Amino acid sequence: MSVLIRNGLVINATGSHAADVLIEGEHIAALVTPGFEVQADEVIDAAGKYVIPGGIDVHTHMEMPFGGTQSADTFETGTTAAAWGGTTTIVDFAVQPKGSSLLSTLDKWHSKADGNCAIDYGFHMIISDVNDASLKEMESCIAAGVNSFKMFMAYPGVFYATDGEILRAMQKARETGATIMMHAENGIAIDQLVAQALANGLGDPVQHGLTRPPELEGEATSRAIQLAKVTGSPLYIVHLSAAQALDAVTAARDTGQNVFAETCPQYLYLSLEDLARPGFEGAKYVASPPLRPKEHQSSLWRGLRTNDLSVVSTDHCPFCFKDQKQLGLGDFSKIPNGMPGVEHRVDLLHQGVVKGEITRERWVEIASTTPARMFGMYPRKGVIAPGADADVVIYDPAATQTISAETHHMAVDYSAYEGFDVTGKVDTVFSRGRKVIADGAYHGSTGHGRFVSRDLNQYLV
Amino acid sequence: MSVLIRNGLVINATGSHAADVLIEGEHIAALVTPGFEVQADEVIDAAGKYVIPGGIDVHTHMEMPFGGTQSADTFETGTTAAAWGGTTTIVDFAVQPKGSSLLSTLDKWHSKADGNCAIDYGFHMIISDVNDASLKEMESCIAAGVNSFKMFMAYPGVFYATDGEILRAMQKARETGATIMMHAENGIAIDQLVAQALANGLGDPVQHGLTRPPELEGEATSRAIQLAKVTGSPLYIVHLSAAQALDAVTAARDTGQNVFAETCPQYLYLSLEDLARPGFEGAKYVASPPLRPKEHQSSLWRGLRTNDLSVVSTDHCPFCFKDQKQLGLGDFSKIPNGMPGVEHRVDLLHQGVVKGEITRERWVEIASTTPARMFGMYPRKGVIAPGADADVVIYDPAATQTISAETHHMAVDYSAYEGFDVTGKVDTVFSRGRKVIADGAYHGSTGHGRFVSRDLNQYLV
Amino acid sequence: MSVLIRNGLVINATGSHAADVLIEGEHIAALVTPGFEVQADEVIDAAGKYVIPGGIDVHTHMEMPFGGTQSADTFETGTTAAAWGGTTTIVDFAVQPKGSSLLSTLDKWHSKADGNCAIDYGFHMIISDVNDASLKEMESCIAAGVNSFKMFMAYPGVFYATDGEILRAMQKARETGATIMMHAENGIAIDQLVAQALANGLGDPVQHGLTRPPELEGEATSRAIQLAKVTGSPLYIVHLSAAQALDAVTAARDTGQNVFAETCPQYLYLSLEDLARPGFEGAKYVASPPLRPKEHQSSLWRGLRTNDLSVVSTDHCPFCFKDQKQLGLGDFSKIPNGMPGVEHRVDLLHQGVVKGEITRERWVEIASTTPARMFGMYPRKGVIAPGADADVVIYDPAATQTISAETHHMAVDYSAYEGFDVTGKVDTVFSRGRKVIADGAYHGSTGHGRFVSRDLNQYLV
Amino acid sequence: MSVLIRNGLVINATGSHAADVLIEGEHIAALVTPGFEVQADEVIDAAGKYVIPGGIDVHTHMEMPFGGTQSADTFETGTTAAAWGGTTTIVDFAVQPKGSSLLSTLDKWHSKADGNCAIDYGFHMIISDVNDASLKEMESCIAAGVNSFKMFMAYPGVFYATDGEILRAMQKARETGATIMMHAENGIAIDQLVAQALANGLGDPVQHGLTRPPELEGEATSRAIQLAKVTGSPLYIVHLSAAQALDAVTAARDTGQNVFAETCPQYLYLSLEDLARPGFEGAKYVASPPLRPKEHQSSLWRGLRTNDLSVVSTDHCPFCFKDQKQLGLGDFSKIPNGMPGVEHRVDLLHQGVVKGEITRERWVEIASTTPARMFGMYPRKGVIAPGADADVVIYDPAATQTISAETHHMAVDYSAYEGFDVTGKVDTVFSRGRKVIADGAYHGSTGHGRFVSRDLNQYLV
Ligand SMILES: [Zn+2]
Ligand SMILES: [Zn+2]
Ligand SMILES: [Zn+2]
Ligand SMILES: [Zn+2]
Ligand SMILES: [Zn+2]
Ligand SMILES: [Zn+2]
Ligand SMILES: [Zn+2]
Ligand SMILES: [Zn+2]
Repeated sequence: MSVLIRNGLVINATGSHAADVLIEGEHIAALVTPGFEVQADEVIDAAGKYVIPGGIDVHTHMEMPFGGTQSADTFETGTTAAAWGGTTTIVDFAVQPKGSSLLSTLDKWHSKADGNCAIDYGFHMIISDVNDASLKEMESCIAAGVNSFKMFMAYPGVFYATDGEILRAMQKARETGATIMMHAENGIAIDQLVAQALANGLGDPVQHGLTRPPELEGEATSRAIQLAKVTGSPLYIVHLSAAQALDAVTAARDTGQNVFAETCPQYLYLSLEDLARPGFEGAKYVASPPLRPKEHQSSLWRGLRTNDLSVVSTDHCPFCFKDQKQLGLGDFSKIPNGMPGVEHRVDLLHQGVVKGEITRERWVEIASTTPARMFGMYPRKGVIAPGADADVVIYDPAATQTISAETHHMAVDYSAYEGFDVTGKVDTVFSRGRKVIADGAYHGSTGHGRFVSRDLNQYLV
Repeated sequence: MSVLIRNGLVINATGSHAADVLIEGEHIAALVTPGFEVQADEVIDAAGKYVIPGGIDVHTHMEMPFGGTQSADTFETGTTAAAWGGTTTIVDFAVQPKGSSLLSTLDKWHSKADGNCAIDYGFHMIISDVNDASLKEMESCIAAGVNSFKMFMAYPGVFYATDGEILRAMQKARETGATIMMHAENGIAIDQLVAQALANGLGDPVQHGLTRPPELEGEATSRAIQLAKVTGSPLYIVHLSAAQALDAVTAARDTGQNVFAETCPQYLYLSLEDLARPGFEGAKYVASPPLRPKEHQSSLWRGLRTNDLSVVSTDHCPFCFKDQKQLGLGDFSKIPNGMPGVEHRVDLLHQGVVKGEITRERWVEIASTTPARMFGMYPRKGVIAPGADADVVIYDPAATQTISAETHHMAVDYSAYEGFDVTGKVDTVFSRGRKVIADGAYHGSTGHGRFVSRDLNQYLV
Repeated sequence: MSVLIRNGLVINATGSHAADVLIEGEHIAALVTPGFEVQADEVIDAAGKYVIPGGIDVHTHMEMPFGGTQSADTFETGTTAAAWGGTTTIVDFAVQPKGSSLLSTLDKWHSKADGNCAIDYGFHMIISDVNDASLKEMESCIAAGVNSFKMFMAYPGVFYATDGEILRAMQKARETGATIMMHAENGIAIDQLVAQALANGLGDPVQHGLTRPPELEGEATSRAIQLAKVTGSPLYIVHLSAAQALDAVTAARDTGQNVFAETCPQYLYLSLEDLARPGFEGAKYVASPPLRPKEHQSSLWRGLRTNDLSVVSTDHCPFCFKDQKQLGLGDFSKIPNGMPGVEHRVDLLHQGVVKGEITRERWVEIASTTPARMFGMYPRKGVIAPGADADVVIYDPAATQTISAETHHMAVDYSAYEGFDVTGKVDTVFSRGRKVIADGAYHGSTGHGRFVSRDLNQYLV
Repeated sequence: MSVLIRNGLVINATGSHAADVLIEGEHIAALVTPGFEVQADEVIDAAGKYVIPGGIDVHTHMEMPFGGTQSADTFETGTTAAAWGGTTTIVDFAVQPKGSSLLSTLDKWHSKADGNCAIDYGFHMIISDVNDASLKEMESCIAAGVNSFKMFMAYPGVFYATDGEILRAMQKARETGATIMMHAENGIAIDQLVAQALANGLGDPVQHGLTRPPELEGEATSRAIQLAKVTGSPLYIVHLSAAQALDAVTAARDTGQNVFAETCPQYLYLSLEDLARPGFEGAKYVASPPLRPKEHQSSLWRGLRTNDLSVVSTDHCPFCFKDQKQLGLGDFSKIPNGMPGVEHRVDLLHQGVVKGEITRERWVEIASTTPARMFGMYPRKGVIAPGADADVVIYDPAATQTISAETHHMAVDYSAYEGFDVTGKVDTVFSRGRKVIADGAYHGSTGHGRFVSRDLNQYLV
């Protein structure tokens, strides 16, 4: 089975050019100049449209256990929603419970995802328990295609790792070439502020933002950078939200240190004002780090232009407003942390193109190419090139749409972007050569998505 | 006529992948997965070799008038040497003499190059005379495919532009989208130091370096950046040599300002010690800015990694040691400024890959892709993609060679890199589909090279 | 004749303590613990009041030639007004006309001031003409007690010095220990903006501010710092007004370079909004550098706290609104540059104490002690200590007053601070032991003030 | 009883002047111009000598419990040695044991010192146990004249405070005006490196330095600064040793934050090379933070000039080489941390004057005036002024001496500065008017020294 996409504008990270793209089976077989004669079973006319590598969202949490509940999207619903939004690969987090092993954790996550995904998926590993055994197991994880390990400087008693544990894991990363991913907030100090707010009877959602000052994200980011410097480990800061943290990353990158960072659409478009919406409405916007005052947004866009922010992921971790978010009514610290977003990342970033914040090439780079390079999937993913997986999106830059929970495909009862008018829309999506979205309908199948065994970071400076 | 390059590793700026490359006529017609069936008149086996976009050297001075003499390479000899070294496009400088017009200058340079070049070429324009007429003419230059304008903060009475003149040209650049290129040294202060050295009887070549302290390059760089900020003009710093200047560029780039910089191989590999060689030997190494103390080199390599240095060009401006350099015997200020290098840039940068300073993708990016984007030639140049000019180099990463004036092809009687042992060597070079270097021989022809009419900077942040 | 000031709080730069101060003749003879028995001809009770060293204003322009006119205050009126405001020493600028010698200039200024001053005075020298002779004369100036030399990076054709001339003067400063004072604005670039504004028919006073962007003060400040670094010269930036310039000074000071800066009350209290007052009213606020947007003020106050700004002077250079300022009606570039202020500096800075911006010790330091150290007058001036000149001010921190042209003593027909309500007021002023202000009346005499031959900078880091 | 010190050069922080100093009883009664007639019981001729405020060492540990032992100097021997060296006030640390109260701790330290000191003394409080009770007790400490509280980011299980505990104590400091003093090393990460070194059989003293990399001091310093920023607390970094930490302090101070730092003579004069001395000799130099590579020294001297380092204290904490240091033979982590120095601080800093690193005024400022202001003792201490305590040192700047354990007065069997030749020597020392050192002999008495109840920090920016 072969498909020829004709007359589109192929966009890669360094530039755009008119070319026809031939898909054969699961791969891209050829790129040819428009008009060059090529045989194909099906021909699609992409005139006036973009042909881009499928989006890669390297930070999602499908059916993640949380308290007695779990995040609202299963691997099936979440990956299907991703496909609708032009994302053809996710990298989700396997979560080591304290006291268990990394490999058994990985098995567990494989069994959750296996046979249930609409698109390809990989795993990062969250290390909750640093000890000789788990450090040793990092090697096995790498052999199994999981070579990025997330740690937390927040959530003591749950995910929190001490600086000594971080140091040890970073030493192992240095030794093996793995990348340490960091949730960088000083949770020890934050928890005091949270306790004080609650003790003072301040329980509204906005307190979630006020008790997590941006300086404490900047601090933790700096600290992680210094630990990475001492050990020589690559470091990737997840969900960077604050100008202070960006400053720390920028300074480190100027010295040539292998420090990278992602931000998320919610930090680019939403703010503390949303957390402060009347009633309990703010609960919809509770995630960590919290939404920041608006003035942080322009710093983040600038960081995307300067490449001090190299990736945009969603940190997709949906909880329904009803039943789930409402666990924290009156006590913001009990609101499940997380927001939905996997379906809208590609579109929301395209607004950056529309508004002149970034070029369309940079859009492709931060949404697909750099995620692929950073997490060892290039050139299999992240580029329109012969031999690559045929993860291809035909994108209509002129179409318009309005984001709404009524029309989205994520299994959550609200949208953080309800009513946003967006220019640009996914037209057709191929996942490993299979047309999964076309003509406004889903044509994929559960279980089509396969596990992506990833190589080491290909993006080191 | 078609050629198929089989089994090579195609390297682009974001990554590498195995692919076969089909050249038809002057263009790349297709990239296909290895083994995908394609018809071609000729098939070349590139197994074990790299297939890269031809090098682009955006800073050369062929047959440049200087005093009563001119630089030693003609467009013919210089572009032929470039081809030998894997460079398939140069951008040379048309030099407005004071009192003449930009367009007549451009005509003059067209007539020098037209019919004489082995490879494609473009022009930047040096503005020596800023006035209403020449500012207006910038528009005509842009229409004629010349949209980058070089100015000098040094050489009063010759090329020097005052800060007021720079401001005016930058305002025009802001208005038209052109890029201002800057020779950033505080020549007014330097000339005092030069005069003092000569008055003190210090005439040796090393004084050339000692009278141009790196702080005065840093200063001028900062000043150009501030003028660019006030006017909103894109700015490209040429031949950056000093850590102080790099610091200024880095700080500006961190703010998202459209400031870019190139360095040159001589600043990466040679140093003030070469200027201080015994006798008059140091004259071979006289160029401006001067070679710096060795400790600047690691800063420059770091800048190449962090992209605070985005391009490496040669500032190729050869003068023979005999007759030309010797004009300055006893008075270093009379030594013609400039060094040969157009033939060795690609190889010398490949040493950075060999030594682990940069990746091979970054090698391609700084030697070809970014120059093409920065100076409006992408995707025609700078990438292996269908539709692009078939400027293709097959590069053997394992071959070795020794640089020497005895074997080089530049029309100059010495090599600045005499005796350097280099790993990696050009195997075959295509210029717009024509095989110009193959089997250790030159197969090109004078006049094959065509003028490249360039678009505006495609690399703005 | 001896006077004992009892029961006051003596404030010096490092702290405050209760002490009685004995003046004998022209000097302070003793500081004693309150109650320690001392004989004196007169006893003044300063209970509830501060006893501070007299203010030192190191930047004034009395009867300064400008076009066909001169600044409105003579040495007599200007120094008398200074005395009213608690300032007991000024350092004024002798202005070398192009083509004349430094020493003849100094003679001329001596003859202007000699016998006409109410308080002590010194001179800085403005070098307009840098050549072998004037550089040599710097030595004679130093021998004559004038060891600070002001240069201009603005006003081409009048005071402007090229970077080469600045370099040469700085070399001489390095050699002799003198201090270079710099008017740091890029006047070459600014003059283009001014010409463009006028060509566009924009002639109002506010254009004075808009054509001198703060980046161009920042730039010139950085440039002066680099020239000082290359030469090893001490550098003192006069009338710093912009946050960008302060940033440059701060960065240099962090490296330990001998770079210092002053600001002026107008930059702390007034802003671009005053320049934009309706009609021609803005002309009252025309000085260079121009008043800045309000947000610069908090940076300047912070600089005063961190000592990146070490001195506050007035740049007192009054021109009457009628007749003088009106020369620039319709053409802002013809408005005489300068504002009155010598009378109000001590009071205006005391508002910084009242508002909590600075401590009272810092008030004394920036108004008196550091100026004395910076310009070689300590411990003769700038401190309440035995042996010092009895330049003593008894200051009532609780008194209130309203600034107005109707009540001020400067010979100018408007006040830049008209209607400002101020807490704190001069009670009694001694100049070299002579009571010049007391009981709301002037008791001094023209010609009491003497020339202060100054030593080298005592404040170098 | 009165003493008149004639003909000396009185040095204060802002300058020097010839003056006679009259001591009456415990206080300075008058400063008078030389020759001004004053009655006194005794007259001392200080011609050719300096008259300076007595040294103030704000960081000592006399008879500090450590493991089963205690630091080698008692309050008696330590304060006597201090007097010999021109120090007339120390501020020592009361050490709260976990589980005990601050006030009982303070009582304990009062009973150790009371009646045993040769000179005046104050206390800081080390908080080992942060809880509601101890936070509340901070108020009582302040009322009792102890308003500076030291915390540790190192030594888990002993002194270590979590970031949450630090935050709480800083909130209390903000509320009360107290100052938080910080031992800034990331002890959690360091302890991993220590354990790894020991596990690898690396037990020599030099490992003490190698396992505490300067980045981890820089990191902790930055972290403390951010916590101080979030809370608004004044912060004083103790014993700063690394350039990285100084950079963090400098950056904070540039923003106007109330962040201060001290260094110690050992970091200015000794280095990692001393820790690496053959055999077990390096144990003499074990203190925390460790001695650093030599290149840090010039940064520290520069910091003293720029006032980013405001104080030099000794961290005097002597342990005898025999018996005490030897507890760590074979296991560097068991070597008691600390070095002797209280006797030599004033002399060692005077070498900075001799070598041109600092002025003699700055010498007095960092050794006496700023410590007095920073810790609320000014103008009682730290200045030669009427009303001040007569803590006066007559210092002979031309005398020479050689430091040696054979001649020093500290109760410890080695000197860290053995064999150092020093220019400058204490001649006579007054403690609250009592002559304690004169004619090369000790004339003081145990118990003369009194507790100094201190006010809040008078040095805030
Ligand atoms: Zn997450
Ligand atoms: Zn140049
Ligand atoms: Zn950067
Ligand atoms: Zn050039
Ligand atoms: Zn001026
Ligand atoms: Zn600073
Ligand atoms: Zn002035
Ligand atoms: Zn200590």
